[in-house]
Amino acid sequence: MNDLLHELQKTLSREIPITRHLGITVVSYDNGSLILKAPLEQNINHAGTAFAGSLNALVTLSAWGQLWLVLKELNIPATIVIQDSTSNYLLPVSNDFSAICHKPEPTQITRLEHTLTRKGKARIELCAQIYSHHEVAMSFKGRYVVSSNHIE
Amino acid sequence: MNDLLHELQKTLSREIPITRHLGITVVSYDNGSLILKAPLEQNINHAGTAFAGSLNALVTLSAWGQLWLVLKELNIPATIVIQDSTSNYLLPVSNDFSAICHKPEPTQITRLEHTLTRKGKARIELCAQIYSHHEVAMSFKGRYVVSSNHIE
Repeated sequence: MNDLLHELQKTLSREIPITRHLGITVVSYDNGSLILKAPLEQNINHAGTAFAGSLNALVTLSAWGQLWLVLKELNIPATIVIQDSTSNYLLPVSNDFSAICHKPEPTQITRLEHTLTRKGKARIELCAQIYSHHEVAMSFKGRYVVSSNHIE
Repeated sequence: MNDLLHELQKTLSREIPITRHLGITVVSYDNGSLILKAPLEQNINHAGTAFAGSLNALVTLSAWGQLWLVLKELNIPATIVIQDSTSNYLLPVSNDFSAICHKPEPTQITRLEHTLTRKGKARIELCAQIYSHHEVAMSFKGRYVVSSNHIE
């Protein structure tokens, strides 16, 4: 795992402490796809499958983490906050699970960078999925607001 | 708190153990409105406000709990699973927070009961909100699938 992923893992564990109880860990960031995972055991529900709230937390953070990485690469200090999201719970998850969030398209990143530079704030939509046994068990779309930490 | 609310609290704590780490507790069920709450401390994020995943978990469970109560009142043993949801994060939450989910309309409950009796499975949509300082900080709409635990 490279330094940036270590920093993301530390940021999640330190700044969003509930992620430790959820057992969320950063797995990889290959070809621009960020993967986070969580164990079933801590996130089990009444049906013996993963609690929807835990699935949602993992995808929400996978997209947040993807944006965090994009902004690090752009070297723009910024704050990322979710604005809205839709979640589709397609299959019950009966084992440990992972969320994947792909890097936004280059045109999206260029637009994000330009708007942030011009206005100090920009919105971007990202998709993420939860996989369980190589099948998409949950799909997520979230819109995030990015505000640059610009010192006036 | 009445016996049914105690049973709901025990069900959440026992069957969805992450709710204990989230600090989720059942507050009241007056005039058909179920209120759950959670403390900021366990659910804090990088911005010093409540983590979106925790807010989502609380509203998801408030609607789940509302349906659980409705089905107890109807005396229909059933399993409740979320199908999809949309969440709007309207304001940052900088203190302890509570979610409220109102009882579905009588026509919705009648339809739910009839469909469950006829088909053994029914869908129902519920709304819930997170309040912080008496303002709606998050709004949620979730569709749930209810399956009756009918013994063939």
